[in-house]
Amino acid sequence: MRVLKFGGSSVATPQSVEAVLSIVKQSAEKRPIAFVVSAMGGITDMLLMAGRLATVQSEEYKQIIAEIENRFLEYVRHMLPITTQSATLSMVKQQINTIEEICNGVFVLQEMSPRTSDRLVSFGELITSRIISAKMEADGIPHAWIDSRELIKTNSKFGHAAVSFSATNRLIRKCFEASTERIAILPGFVASDDFGNTTTLGRGGSDYTAAILAAALSASRLEIWTDVSGMMTADPRQVRNAKPIESISYQEAMELSHFGAKVLYPPTVQPVMRKKIPLWIKNTFAPADHGTLITDSAHDGSEKISGLSSISSIALLSLEGAGMVGIPGFSKRLFAALAGEGVNVILITQGSSEHSICVAISESDEYRAVNAVNQAFHSEIAEGVVYPIKSERDFSVVALVGNSMVNQPGISGRMFGALGRNGINVRAIAQGSSERNISTVISTSDLRKALNVLHESFFETSYK
Amino acid sequence: MRVLKFGGSSVATPQSVEAVLSIVKQSAEKRPIAFVVSAMGGITDMLLMAGRLATVQSEEYKQIIAEIENRFLEYVRHMLPITTQSATLSMVKQQINTIEEICNGVFVLQEMSPRTSDRLVSFGELITSRIISAKMEADGIPHAWIDSRELIKTNSKFGHAAVSFSATNRLIRKCFEASTERIAILPGFVASDDFGNTTTLGRGGSDYTAAILAAALSASRLEIWTDVSGMMTADPRQVRNAKPIESISYQEAMELSHFGAKVLYPPTVQPVMRKKIPLWIKNTFAPADHGTLITDSAHDGSEKISGLSSISSIALLSLEGAGMVGIPGFSKRLFAALAGEGVNVILITQGSSEHSICVAISESDEYRAVNAVNQAFHSEIAEGVVYPIKSERDFSVVALVGNSMVNQPGISGRMFGALGRNGINVRAIAQGSSERNISTVISTSDLRKALNVLHESFFETSYK
Amino acid sequence: MRVLKFGGSSVATPQSVEAVLSIVKQSAEKRPIAFVVSAMGGITDMLLMAGRLATVQSEEYKQIIAEIENRFLEYVRHMLPITTQSATLSMVKQQINTIEEICNGVFVLQEMSPRTSDRLVSFGELITSRIISAKMEADGIPHAWIDSRELIKTNSKFGHAAVSFSATNRLIRKCFEASTERIAILPGFVASDDFGNTTTLGRGGSDYTAAILAAALSASRLEIWTDVSGMMTADPRQVRNAKPIESISYQEAMELSHFGAKVLYPPTVQPVMRKKIPLWIKNTFAPADHGTLITDSAHDGSEKISGLSSISSIALLSLEGAGMVGIPGFSKRLFAALAGEGVNVILITQGSSEHSICVAISESDEYRAVNAVNQAFHSEIAEGVVYPIKSERDFSVVALVGNSMVNQPGISGRMFGALGRNGINVRAIAQGSSERNISTVISTSDLRKALNVLHESFFETSYK
Amino acid sequence: MRVLKFGGSSVATPQSVEAVLSIVKQSAEKRPIAFVVSAMGGITDMLLMAGRLATVQSEEYKQIIAEIENRFLEYVRHMLPITTQSATLSMVKQQINTIEEICNGVFVLQEMSPRTSDRLVSFGELITSRIISAKMEADGIPHAWIDSRELIKTNSKFGHAAVSFSATNRLIRKCFEASTERIAILPGFVASDDFGNTTTLGRGGSDYTAAILAAALSASRLEIWTDVSGMMTADPRQVRNAKPIESISYQEAMELSHFGAKVLYPPTVQPVMRKKIPLWIKNTFAPADHGTLITDSAHDGSEKISGLSSISSIALLSLEGAGMVGIPGFSKRLFAALAGEGVNVILITQGSSEHSICVAISESDEYRAVNAVNQAFHSEIAEGVVYPIKSERDFSVVALVGNSMVNQPGISGRMFGALGRNGINVRAIAQGSSERNISTVISTSDLRKALNVLHESFFETSYK
Repeated sequence: MRVLKFGGSSVATPQSVEAVLSIVKQSAEKRPIAFVVSAMGGITDMLLMAGRLATVQSEEYKQIIAEIENRFLEYVRHMLPITTQSATLSMVKQQINTIEEICNGVFVLQEMSPRTSDRLVSFGELITSRIISAKMEADGIPHAWIDSRELIKTNSKFGHAAVSFSATNRLIRKCFEASTERIAILPGFVASDDFGNTTTLGRGGSDYTAAILAAALSASRLEIWTDVSGMMTADPRQVRNAKPIESISYQEAMELSHFGAKVLYPPTVQPVMRKKIPLWIKNTFAPADHGTLITDSAHDGSEKISGLSSISSIALLSLEGAGMVGIPGFSKRLFAALAGEGVNVILITQGSSEHSICVAISESDEYRAVNAVNQAFHSEIAEGVVYPIKSERDFSVVALVGNSMVNQPGISGRMFGALGRNGINVRAIAQGSSERNISTVISTSDLRKALNVLHESFFETSYK
Repeated sequence: MRVLKFGGSSVATPQSVEAVLSIVKQSAEKRPIAFVVSAMGGITDMLLMAGRLATVQSEEYKQIIAEIENRFLEYVRHMLPITTQSATLSMVKQQINTIEEICNGVFVLQEMSPRTSDRLVSFGELITSRIISAKMEADGIPHAWIDSRELIKTNSKFGHAAVSFSATNRLIRKCFEASTERIAILPGFVASDDFGNTTTLGRGGSDYTAAILAAALSASRLEIWTDVSGMMTADPRQVRNAKPIESISYQEAMELSHFGAKVLYPPTVQPVMRKKIPLWIKNTFAPADHGTLITDSAHDGSEKISGLSSISSIALLSLEGAGMVGIPGFSKRLFAALAGEGVNVILITQGSSEHSICVAISESDEYRAVNAVNQAFHSEIAEGVVYPIKSERDFSVVALVGNSMVNQPGISGRMFGALGRNGINVRAIAQGSSERNISTVISTSDLRKALNVLHESFFETSYK
Repeated sequence: MRVLKFGGSSVATPQSVEAVLSIVKQSAEKRPIAFVVSAMGGITDMLLMAGRLATVQSEEYKQIIAEIENRFLEYVRHMLPITTQSATLSMVKQQINTIEEICNGVFVLQEMSPRTSDRLVSFGELITSRIISAKMEADGIPHAWIDSRELIKTNSKFGHAAVSFSATNRLIRKCFEASTERIAILPGFVASDDFGNTTTLGRGGSDYTAAILAAALSASRLEIWTDVSGMMTADPRQVRNAKPIESISYQEAMELSHFGAKVLYPPTVQPVMRKKIPLWIKNTFAPADHGTLITDSAHDGSEKISGLSSISSIALLSLEGAGMVGIPGFSKRLFAALAGEGVNVILITQGSSEHSICVAISESDEYRAVNAVNQAFHSEIAEGVVYPIKSERDFSVVALVGNSMVNQPGISGRMFGALGRNGINVRAIAQGSSERNISTVISTSDLRKALNVLHESFFETSYK
Repeated sequence: MRVLKFGGSSVATPQSVEAVLSIVKQSAEKRPIAFVVSAMGGITDMLLMAGRLATVQSEEYKQIIAEIENRFLEYVRHMLPITTQSATLSMVKQQINTIEEICNGVFVLQEMSPRTSDRLVSFGELITSRIISAKMEADGIPHAWIDSRELIKTNSKFGHAAVSFSATNRLIRKCFEASTERIAILPGFVASDDFGNTTTLGRGGSDYTAAILAAALSASRLEIWTDVSGMMTADPRQVRNAKPIESISYQEAMELSHFGAKVLYPPTVQPVMRKKIPLWIKNTFAPADHGTLITDSAHDGSEKISGLSSISSIALLSLEGAGMVGIPGFSKRLFAALAGEGVNVILITQGSSEHSICVAISESDEYRAVNAVNQAFHSEIAEGVVYPIKSERDFSVVALVGNSMVNQPGISGRMFGALGRNGINVRAIAQGSSERNISTVISTSDLRKALNVLHESFFETSYK
């Protein structure tokens, strides 16, 4: 058994669906497969937009729904032979009708709850997968369409529901054991709670659907088919010479995908990582390309560094004061203040002297973070033993990722040497003992240069 | 008004006291001075040892007290003319008697409370300062001996009492305004609580006494007289070419003195730092040496890096797990667990990916820290989303300190280049945006080499 | 200025509206008045029911809306002269239309948020007050209809919004100062948040609207017009001889109305109580009856006891154990557990021995309370030092209320003598030193008898 | 096996020791016994007084020690035949010597830690039990003196150490299994921690020692020998007609002994209560008297009420405010504030209306309690929704105790009738459903009258 997942761009057009089905058929010749599809590219955003326009009393939502309808109808018309279109066209129209009713309801009530939002966006995957199922039917590919909502059970936290794994695994196994088809197609992203309400799995949701299935079925492989030929040594938009990565460990893949290469959303990988199921990143539009193989065992060879990742719009907070010296509990109070505001900490660094601690956060969290920390240390600031928090914007984090960096003496020298020689000022550095990366904070205006000089130094020259 | 403070080695022998008094007399010619003395070198430890031996029912404590008595009597006999000795000898004997009674009490009760411990150790400064006062009397130097316990008021947290500054400042000013002498000698380290019990100011206490006096009296200068000619660019026991530092900012001095150069205990500097009173580190035994001048304004010149400091016996803890991704509050729970055990965090580093966080702590805290963190993440560890904390020992932290490092692009490259070329593996790095240091964690076996190559790179060659 | 408030039964029929207007006109002859009306009796419940039926996908909601429409149309037709009906009928139809749209939205979305619920129920007061305004217009009574939502500002906690008094008081005063009419009619219960969304004031809301107005305007009197001639010495359904209470203090009124006499919802009285504005409970259908006058100064006379109140469906929880003796903090843990579950504690009693504590709660809270407490004392129960909580149902609380009970020695004797002689077993008693009541817990099967014997003893015989 | 315990008055004089030994011998004829003795009456207080005088630098402590010595020497001289005195006199002198040394130590160090205090007071039981052991030796009564400190192990919370039952039970059983003597004498009150330091069992400590032994050895009976013929229906100093109670349940005994009859300290009863070992209260000076038998099964007969207990110096706190209505969590905050100050709550009562809650506490806790509660409700008080706490003093709690009061309708009527007829004003009442008492708060000036009229009503007349 293999599980394949095709993203929104892979099912965006009738042509790309042909490519998908050719991959699916070939794969299913040798073994049973389950394949998970995202919504046709762009549809999810349009559904959300329709709901939001209705919420704010803009009648434009009707136009968006008309566009959605049009896209699906065109999709069907170009994909299916005329003779078999009518049932599917009618299904699409019926679903669009429900979408319309929901948006009308939202319009009248002037609000859209997370529950309604989940219900609304679920139509993207549901309709897309049903059309593809109809196409397979028309093409004579025997298969089963399975409603993921009947397999994947979650709590009722709409918008980012948590999976109930014991129930889910039981339902998945029961369903597939009972199935007689070699191919199953399932909509990604959607699930349901104990009351039967539709829920969704949040960011990266279709990957997660596929990983859950793969883990529950102890699949021999999970394939994530997308529109690039795997993970790259750096963001190709920033670094012209970026190269694909052939193989990589789960850990490195998570580090790299944290920013930069948005190929994978790390938490979604967990179910397969725990069961050590190999994960391939493949390109639907270039299936012969090697792609990236992600496994538990790290790659062995001579090359030691996997890639570069980066994130922009970073604010650097520095808390400083003689009052911090030797007081256990200072860090706790700082992080309690940040956690209380739901601020996600991207990078922490505190040098040996303990007179200051520095954290990098998203610029969007800056305002709340600064307020919360200043309030938490209100009395120390008033007494003058701690300074008001200092905050600076327009920074980026660049991270060099590699599995065995810990034991390679020259890497940090090479990294900072390259940055220094090129006049790139490093504002903060963090490298933890067990980590697979060295993270540096630099000015965003230096980002492109930094990525290129580092890429050149580590990936375009043979070193050591 | 100047405040001078002489450490234990400066008053260790009759000869060194001669040197001290010559410095004092010369200084007092131009202006009134207050001078603070520590206990004669070694006495504080002996007093504590006597108390601890008594606690554990070892009669050896009597021998220690006999030695203390002997040292003081010899001190008097060599310092004072025979004709003027008797009153002082009798004072010493009387005090030794009280020490003996206290130790007998401890012996019987089989315990020594922090209150009794404070009372016991206070005799070191009290007797030493009184003997020196007698010497001045004999030498015809007009002066007043002032009992610091009547000026410096603290709470009752014996062992590390906190100063009540408003009462203390008022008492100091009142006392010195009323005084008619140009020279005042005071015992360092000792203070008293609201009930008149003797308290002590903790680690670095005599420096603190002097700084409190200087700040209260708005002295024009605080001089800390010790047995070295100021702060050094590195620990001279590790780095043969270490050089004295001529001038430095308070901030850098605190960073440097955090470890390595134990010349200053940072919190003790605060009272003068806040009032921007210049602080000189001077050598009693080489008063002509320049020493180190510590001021608010950083040194200006071309040299940018001040020095190297280091600390050994470091344990590195790493907490890692996919379950940490994107959960605000993770750091808070980690640091709450550490703070709950009173663990002092020396260095923190968390790379961009958030899959792991790394903290350096003292090896002596390792056991408690590991237990506390494992317990705090007990359920996540059981679920497998976080790994049990990993702990490694035998590390050292090396910090490069300098005031304007933030704006010098090449420094980290030069630093890590030097370490890398010499095969020194860097296990963790932390550099915060506002900090004056880059801290690295290396194996203790590499410490001497690391200090020497860094010293060579930054202090023995002219760069950029 | 006086503020009058008429409840749902007072405006339930065209005939009762005539009575209301006659009272209003008479009152307005002597001074300006503001009068607040509830929704026509029964309408609020019907609106809510329509929304709930729509939520659970029952099409019956349409029938309910039709009934609401019918009731309002009939109301208009019977109240207004035919020639002036059309504008009002059209207003009603328009509003019913919006109600229908909202319910359709709820039906489609399968959920009704507190925000939508507030919006829905607000129509009861809004339509009723507008129809009465039209009636006044037709009758030639000059007046202004004022939308309370523009005066009373709240936070956005839909369902039980909290009033922002500073903004509200300012708006009320500004509005009434600018007004040129002697009579203002306002819908009760409704308010709005900072974004202009409709909010409601929760249980007892129209009383609250009136009290807020009275306090803001420093009215000389607040009159609550209802369908009974004031508060009674006991619930007349249980005690045939119950008599009206002529005058009573705010405090006693709050005690009595806590259960039994649902004439007043205590918190709504606060604004007038704080400003010591007299509050009359009057009967719309018997305006000549004295009613009950509630003032700050208690009644003086010889009669000392005000009345009896009672509440049924009470569960008694008892927590007992030798482990409780002398441990400060036991009560705190018990009440923290109850508060954590939102359990409202009706009566607490803990005897001198501290081996047990007993609380009375609503039976509807019993399940959660028992679980929460057992969990809170889990380890003590496991060790056997505390017993699992004991819970019994089918109890009632009967309270004897009076202002000066504290100084009357014989009252408790008389009370328990009467109960004892009649074989009524008292399961728990609570009387606090500053309280105006003695509360007893008895079996619900004894309730009627208890109320009658107590009423006989305190209100039907002259004693002492 | 039986365990007997003799209190301080039972071993106060040589004559009383004769009585004790005659009881012991008689009991031991039929079965093996262990007997536990308190310190000779008054000695414990004298030891503590000596320590406290030394702490505050009063030399009078020497005089107290001289008195202690004198009392013990006289005790020995009158108890033992001259020929056998010398060893015991020498033992006493040696122990007094140690007491003196300890007090000297305290004098010098000017402080007495809980550890030293425990060590000091332990001499009372140790010396007394050793003298009695010598007397038995002289009388030819074969027995073993066992140092309780080697059997009863506690934690190191000096002053009120908690017993480690598993270790203690194992040690007790091992010791008694190995013993060949029919009679064992043990000092009460004393124990030791894991480091061998002497600890004490706190208030009621010797009873506790005896109960621990009885439970560990599954004794057939625990006898507490004291100077009264059992528990009484009321405090005989207040109520002339108070009568002894023949039999009573553990629960009632704990209720009664909570105040009033200080015969038992309730927590000390737990070990035997849990094992349902019968407990007799007997009179050493009237061994033929029946005493009080305390068992698990309550007495059955016609008499339903066991007794009256009372406690004086009570302060009544009342917290009142309209802001309390219907807010879950109000009680929690009140009790959290009290618990935070370590205030022991003697009686709680909150009537049905929830506008006020009333707690009775010791007058000695009043100041802290009032402050803590006012601070906890600081903002509500400032807003005027809660009034500042009201506190009144000079109250007493009187409790009527009985096992089956719950099912007897007339009791509360009889009780409050009696109080009311006699003009005794009841300020607070608490009776919980599962409790064995009705507690009332009355003015202390009414206490004697109240106790007598209640005693008369329940114990001196036949009722029902």
